[in-house]
Amino acid sequence: MKITVVGLGVIGGSFVKALKGKGYEVYGVDKDVDTLNRAKEDGCIIEGFVDGEEIIPETDLTIICLYPSLVLDFIKNAHFKSGSVVSDAVGIKSYFIEQALEMIPDDVEYISVHPMAGREKKGYAYASADVFKNANFIIIQHETNDEQKIKKMQLLAGKLGFRSVKIMSPYEHDEIISYTSQLPHVMAVALMNSDTQKYDTGKYIGDSFRDLTRIANINEDLWTELFLNNKRYLLSSIRHFEKQLDIMKKAIYDDDDETLKECFRESTRRREHL
Amino acid sequence: MKITVVGLGVIGGSFVKALKGKGYEVYGVDKDVDTLNRAKEDGCIIEGFVDGEEIIPETDLTIICLYPSLVLDFIKNAHFKSGSVVSDAVGIKSYFIEQALEMIPDDVEYISVHPMAGREKKGYAYASADVFKNANFIIIQHETNDEQKIKKMQLLAGKLGFRSVKIMSPYEHDEIISYTSQLPHVMAVALMNSDTQKYDTGKYIGDSFRDLTRIANINEDLWTELFLNNKRYLLSSIRHFEKQLDIMKKAIYDDDDETLKECFRESTRRREHL
Repeated sequence: MKITVVGLGVIGGSFVKALKGKGYEVYGVDKDVDTLNRAKEDGCIIEGFVDGEEIIPETDLTIICLYPSLVLDFIKNAHFKSGSVVSDAVGIKSYFIEQALEMIPDDVEYISVHPMAGREKKGYAYASADVFKNANFIIIQHETNDEQKIKKMQLLAGKLGFRSVKIMSPYEHDEIISYTSQLPHVMAVALMNSDTQKYDTGKYIGDSFRDLTRIANINEDLWTELFLNNKRYLLSSIRHFEKQLDIMKKAIYDDDDETLKECFRESTRRREHL
Repeated sequence: MKITVVGLGVIGGSFVKALKGKGYEVYGVDKDVDTLNRAKEDGCIIEGFVDGEEIIPETDLTIICLYPSLVLDFIKNAHFKSGSVVSDAVGIKSYFIEQALEMIPDDVEYISVHPMAGREKKGYAYASADVFKNANFIIIQHETNDEQKIKKMQLLAGKLGFRSVKIMSPYEHDEIISYTSQLPHVMAVALMNSDTQKYDTGKYIGDSFRDLTRIANINEDLWTELFLNNKRYLLSSIRHFEKQLDIMKKAIYDDDDETLKECFRESTRRREHL
């Protein structure tokens, strides 16, 4: 089976690294020749291409790991093999999946996925098979999907090292992701930017601040696109968070130790359950 | 030099573990005999005591690692050696330091410290010298402190593995800590509790959510005390955070990609500077 990964950045690069030695014929497409050469030297791809013209028509599974806005462009211009599967790894789904489906020929299966793994840094150099180990994987199922092909994708995710594979609709995906992924990014950025900078902050932090703000180092183009195209769910998640923040703020203001303790007990119970 | 650590929980236990092999005579006080026996078996203390009656009057440096509310009780009832230094590791300082100073005899030096290191879990079993490695250490200086003794404390912190040692007033300490430590805990608890629980959340999270909510597993008695006794600074830090959250919320609502990108560029710059 021929797999081609399009875009060997941090996610696409991790795909080819995790696919290495798993018995697939893996190819890479990237506009950067140095990246292609490195991936070939690493033994992660058989051959690299600066565009998909030659390799995509022969590919059984195409995984497009480009910026969201570029995924549709790529699909529009590609000639996919009849009976093949095309996938993407974009962080939100509903806003473009209908458009993608319209462009995909009837004899090609479109199965969007979301590997819940990443790095703050961009590029192949930061890609690693390790980021997929024991991570969560989501497969987006729409009405026209073939059950057998969904199952094959599920098996592949297991082979890549993912611990959990969930199947859901694009809308469900975007709702839960607005809470588990987008809201934490909003919080980290707001925390970092709310520093009054009166002190040399780095000298007064512990692990919690370091952990929490790691994702405040953020790819501005990618995340702006992800936020604005999921605004309904994201704004709702922010509102839920603000409600809880208000409860704690009021308890602190009122010296209401019982409410505070109840908040802590609840969060501890939930975190341990996780 | 005789050092006695009072309370061999996660912080006190880390102190005796980090002091091991550094050339001091180290003793432990804890109401739990099993904990004292374990610390002795580990070679971290020469002897353990269930109260301070016998050992404190002979101790050159007493480090009190009890809950904030118990520190003052301990000081009130202890008989400190003339010329000795007494310290505590409480997470906020201004609300009790004046009371502590009133109880401390004139021939005893009180130097409050804050090792910016911890664990979510309680107890000696989770203590480790590693948590101090490369961490930040704060020494609280008040008007009556002896410069030489402050310097000795600074040297000790270096020996324990801390990378940075800062000296500041109790008020400065409580202000910066409300931002770097207390606000992240408020955020983590609010995030955890804002889950609508419509989905099996654990299957849809990545590292960022895991990192961010680790401290939502929180010691309710300790943190309620720390929050309520630092409410002025903490509420101010929450307000600064809410302002930044509002800026991002408005930008998302208005599809204002330029403002969002500006927020991301600023947080990235600040995080990299850290």
